[in-house]
Amino acid sequence: MPGEFDLIRRFFMDATADRPDVVLGIGDDCALLQVPGDRLLAISSDTLVSGHHFTADVDPQALGYKALAVNLSDMAAMGAEPAWASLCITLPQADERWLKDFMCGFSELAACFDVQLVGGDTTRGPLSVSIAIQGFTDRQGGLRRDAARVGDRIYVSGTLGDAGLALRVRQGRYVPKGEMCTLDERLDRPQPRVALGRRLGKFSRCAIDISDGLGSDLMHICEQSGVGAMLNLDQLPLSLQVGRYVADTGDWSLPLSAGDDYELAFTLPAELQAEFEREAGSWDVPVTCVGTIEPGEGVRARLPDGRIIEEVTRGYEHFRT
Amino acid sequence: MPGEFDLIRRFFMDATADRPDVVLGIGDDCALLQVPGDRLLAISSDTLVSGHHFTADVDPQALGYKALAVNLSDMAAMGAEPAWASLCITLPQADERWLKDFMCGFSELAACFDVQLVGGDTTRGPLSVSIAIQGFTDRQGGLRRDAARVGDRIYVSGTLGDAGLALRVRQGRYVPKGEMCTLDERLDRPQPRVALGRRLGKFSRCAIDISDGLGSDLMHICEQSGVGAMLNLDQLPLSLQVGRYVADTGDWSLPLSAGDDYELAFTLPAELQAEFEREAGSWDVPVTCVGTIEPGEGVRARLPDGRIIEEVTRGYEHFRT
Repeated sequence: MPGEFDLIRRFFMDATADRPDVVLGIGDDCALLQVPGDRLLAISSDTLVSGHHFTADVDPQALGYKALAVNLSDMAAMGAEPAWASLCITLPQADERWLKDFMCGFSELAACFDVQLVGGDTTRGPLSVSIAIQGFTDRQGGLRRDAARVGDRIYVSGTLGDAGLALRVRQGRYVPKGEMCTLDERLDRPQPRVALGRRLGKFSRCAIDISDGLGSDLMHICEQSGVGAMLNLDQLPLSLQVGRYVADTGDWSLPLSAGDDYELAFTLPAELQAEFEREAGSWDVPVTCVGTIEPGEGVRARLPDGRIIEEVTRGYEHFRT
Repeated sequence: MPGEFDLIRRFFMDATADRPDVVLGIGDDCALLQVPGDRLLAISSDTLVSGHHFTADVDPQALGYKALAVNLSDMAAMGAEPAWASLCITLPQADERWLKDFMCGFSELAACFDVQLVGGDTTRGPLSVSIAIQGFTDRQGGLRRDAARVGDRIYVSGTLGDAGLALRVRQGRYVPKGEMCTLDERLDRPQPRVALGRRLGKFSRCAIDISDGLGSDLMHICEQSGVGAMLNLDQLPLSLQVGRYVADTGDWSLPLSAGDDYELAFTLPAELQAEFEREAGSWDVPVTCVGTIEPGEGVRARLPDGRIIEEVTRGYEHFRT
């Protein structure tokens, strides 16, 4: 079995983009990188743990893709341009095939976003993956959670609840009508909304990515901005399948509280709404106005029949019992 | 038991230095940071896993200290000035006392080096700690592993084998003569040589930190620089206790192959040696010339009796069987 350094050399070096701003890449004590003088450095890190975020028998290629996607989604939510990543993998044993497949998924996505792997390590232990990602925003700062203002319109990208529905079907908790492979793709291969995040800066100062569910993630914006939110459920953008699920079951928790969609939720001043929607009409990813920032606190929702849900269920929190 | 966000808020925010270059700190999708326009960004990350790097019953305060120390040592080895860190902790359960003690050790060291914690997460799972650290070097780049040249003198800082001897004593494999608490301190609370690393740039372009043992870490320099190295064992800087151990046992593997000292090994051109030693004479940390970079490959060592060890034992590698 090869030593750690052989593994790093074989699977990590040259695995990703080759960026001119990388002065020194993998293989030294640190990587050395050039941040443009007129920009801010944006950094984020996330750990995915076996038995918690995924099962031990996870397809390593899917895990490699998703581990990076989750981090790219944090960049998207800040309106940042991703550039570099470090990857720390803990593995029960040095499984070359596993690592190769993992890097295949990781590298595919890294290439899409011109991200170069510049460091990390491999360690023996219970399976987990920790990624630190770095990128840039302009000097005015990015899309913060504390910048929502009363009267702002609330938008989301894409459709909500697709990943959650795919999971319910996979767990045998719902029998779908019709074709499911689009939803499986949404759960296994989320598309980080990086291009959208970078475009939003012209209109918005406030965004978050929807990893724990719209209600829960919007609550972070409300708490940090000192405001409340009202969602209009009949405006929520739903795929055909999720729309059918809600019609069948009356269960709005799926689009409101299911996580893993990695769409963006963002706010913008009402006076920019018309211009924003004109411009956004030509973008690849649909954006939909789903509510309004209000005085007060907490996330409320108006059902299609006009009734109000006073406290939208908060999403999954890792240490909540 | 509190949710993840409460834990982050309570233990991580305001835990460390408050730097003016942090535009946006903990609590958003990304941190936003100002890198001086005339400098390079240096980044490094490391994971410490229970059962591998430490035991499950480790003192959390000592772990918090050491986890950051290991990362600061990477900054030191690059000659970088540390600035920010992210901390991902995976814990079997949300143990507030454990986290508080961990952060106590982490924060103490962070304060010493003016490092601000700017992100991270807490996850449920088998105990492990993953830190990503960021800092700066000047535009000429830092102290690289690939910059040793034939004829360069090889130096090390401090003394070698102290942490290794403390471990042997703790494991009952050696009965020390005399007092041991200095060596315990060397194992549990290594001093990252950050100030030394930053001073070296005037004389050296090549350094590594000694985490796996001098032989093994110097081998990385040799491999990446395409050179060999000859060490003179009678020049190795040894503490009283390690000197006595070597005299008693004739076992040079302790100062050559034991890890965890976190001293620096570095090289500099022979013509700078006199000036370097004059200047270094006034520094806090002693530096000692222990050998010469030679043509060829591999690390050799000359015993005090003149005999040559052709291949200095390589240190511990995580996946080596």
